[in-house]
Amino acid sequence: MPSISRRGETMPESPIRKLVPFAEAAIKRGIKIIHLNIGQPDIKTPKVALEAVRNNTLEVLAYTRTEGSEPYREKIAKYYAKNNIDVDADHIIVTTGGSEALSFAMGSIADTEDEIIIPEPFYANYNGFANACGIKVVPVVSSIENNFALPPIDEFEKLITPRTKAILICNPGNPTGYLYTREEIKKLATIIKKHNLFLVADEVYREFIYDGREHCSILQEIGLEEHAIVIDSVSKRYSMCGARIGYLVSKNKEVIRTALKFAQARLSPPTYAQIASEAALDTPQSYFDDVKKEYGERRNLLISELNKLEGVVVGRPQGAFYCIAQLPIENADTFAQWLLEDFNLDGETVMVAPAAGFYATNGLGTNQIRIAYVLDKEDLRRAVHILKVALKAYAH
Amino acid sequence: MPSISRRGETMPESPIRKLVPFAEAAIKRGIKIIHLNIGQPDIKTPKVALEAVRNNTLEVLAYTRTEGSEPYREKIAKYYAKNNIDVDADHIIVTTGGSEALSFAMGSIADTEDEIIIPEPFYANYNGFANACGIKVVPVVSSIENNFALPPIDEFEKLITPRTKAILICNPGNPTGYLYTREEIKKLATIIKKHNLFLVADEVYREFIYDGREHCSILQEIGLEEHAIVIDSVSKRYSMCGARIGYLVSKNKEVIRTALKFAQARLSPPTYAQIASEAALDTPQSYFDDVKKEYGERRNLLISELNKLEGVVVGRPQGAFYCIAQLPIENADTFAQWLLEDFNLDGETVMVAPAAGFYATNGLGTNQIRIAYVLDKEDLRRAVHILKVALKAYAH
Repeated sequence: MPSISRRGETMPESPIRKLVPFAEAAIKRGIKIIHLNIGQPDIKTPKVALEAVRNNTLEVLAYTRTEGSEPYREKIAKYYAKNNIDVDADHIIVTTGGSEALSFAMGSIADTEDEIIIPEPFYANYNGFANACGIKVVPVVSSIENNFALPPIDEFEKLITPRTKAILICNPGNPTGYLYTREEIKKLATIIKKHNLFLVADEVYREFIYDGREHCSILQEIGLEEHAIVIDSVSKRYSMCGARIGYLVSKNKEVIRTALKFAQARLSPPTYAQIASEAALDTPQSYFDDVKKEYGERRNLLISELNKLEGVVVGRPQGAFYCIAQLPIENADTFAQWLLEDFNLDGETVMVAPAAGFYATNGLGTNQIRIAYVLDKEDLRRAVHILKVALKAYAH
Repeated sequence: MPSISRRGETMPESPIRKLVPFAEAAIKRGIKIIHLNIGQPDIKTPKVALEAVRNNTLEVLAYTRTEGSEPYREKIAKYYAKNNIDVDADHIIVTTGGSEALSFAMGSIADTEDEIIIPEPFYANYNGFANACGIKVVPVVSSIENNFALPPIDEFEKLITPRTKAILICNPGNPTGYLYTREEIKKLATIIKKHNLFLVADEVYREFIYDGREHCSILQEIGLEEHAIVIDSVSKRYSMCGARIGYLVSKNKEVIRTALKFAQARLSPPTYAQIASEAALDTPQSYFDDVKKEYGERRNLLISELNKLEGVVVGRPQGAFYCIAQLPIENADTFAQWLLEDFNLDGETVMVAPAAGFYATNGLGTNQIRIAYVLDKEDLRRAVHILKVALKAYAH
């Protein structure tokens, strides 16, 4: 039998995937699972997007332009203008999800054995895309005690080598919910310019910011034009993860020219999804106001309930819809499996994402879990109660 | 300004892309262009597929399973059974176009600096995916004089090194239309087993075979189960290139397990497109009979018209909807540009794809073009007439 590649062997598996057989077995035993483990929002997709697809009159489902249609990209540029981000249609490539934008960005700026510095914990799939390209992820630790703030600049400088090509941030963060301040972005900009690196920012949760705070995009930073690459996506913004539409945005012409070559190889982003996503740009502001209010309330409920649990430390997310919780246990992998295999409260249990998969440093985050608050408040309250009872039972 | 990656610099551009500005300028001058250059069929998408999307009642456009839904993959397995290919749902991963299937296959079986042997001319984007992964494409020449038949086996053996991981074929071929015989597949199987390699076959044009011949899939080859990986796509089969749905199919469990990890990183294939593609499996046989008849007639017309032109050599495609034509010129790049920039016949001209981009060996195919017969017969006839007049004018 021919052997698979080393890159294939080292491709990380999703931190949740290992738990799936245990979840399936629990369901077979009649256990109801409350899912705290996935970032698939329960929020309805805007009607304007769904209807645009239902009303389409295509007779030939043809390729679109590789970079997305001109009118769509112009409309995206207007969306950015409303968000105080000044870009043209030419600075935007429409991609198949934020995933593909990230993949194009990594391929365009880094070669095999090159390094990208990422504050950890980080979105687990960054590891996957880097591994597929042979790029080395160099983690810099942010800690729950500090609510996952930007690590001190000298921690970054210690890690920079001739092979360092970029720093990658997620703002606001998955899995931490941390929102970088303008000051933190400026600190990053200084180091980026000093070492002539790229700054890649995954800003897909831009709309979901709480406590009256404001999102700072790296594209707003003057002097960073040639360095900044933004990864964006419609998935969470319009609760349409299944569309698989994202954007790569940069004012650096070489980056766009290069990413476009990667895009040409895969021909075009999906057509129906572009119809939905272009229409979604007409979503009324009231939709976002409602969604933001809902997520804000869920966050408040979740964090205050978690804080009541003995021995639980929880970050306070200011954006997105995730939080990291540190539990009074040794190993969250074992605990998460136990929750599905050996525990239930009146026929119910919870599924959580062990946080170790969001760290690149071995041994970090082993007693932490990521919780996504994409469930209604009643379910969230019950989930935390189940967790409370489970933690007590697990300790004995 | 930070520098882009070497892999980004060496990413090939689409052979057609360079001509686009000249085409746009021609249109501005009021010239009508007949496009022989693109593989976007004019054939209508089956109604059953279009209507499934129009009638969808989704309220949340959610992720699907990473590998595609269970019912969809089971239905795909039945499609293969009808085509005398015996696979289960577990052997199939639904991908975002055949492009992504190819990308997952390459990533799963080859590392940076590893080699894949491909008979040339080949689909230009194979170069792109290989380059993105740092894989070396090793071409083995098939020639128009021989109608692009499989090169002799000792030509392959000469090229095999310890870094060779696979042979990749496209059957029937883009850009040649060549259909491998059962005997040729068996020859390949022998060499594949002898050297313990993978055989990757792009079989997306399986349905479009002429002259009463039959398609031979590598998945039908007994003893090749652990070696065979098929790349498939709904794009051409149902004239729905814009869906962006393909499949990776293999009975090698390690390949599927590994490709699934690449798939997990990008979450899931597009949801609407899967609705359309699942419904498309119910397309009545009469649709294919009509489409095949139409393509067959176009092929006959195109080949016989081209054969009338002095100094033109043309392969006889037995499948797909492309052919390679060798012209009595020196450089097809220059000629293709001249057709758009300096020539018209009563306000019309043709756009062709220079074939050099389909060869990996420098200097090969420079006097050849690829023609896609995805236009109606009237347009095809006129296009060849325009080409005839143009060739005469160009010679003077």
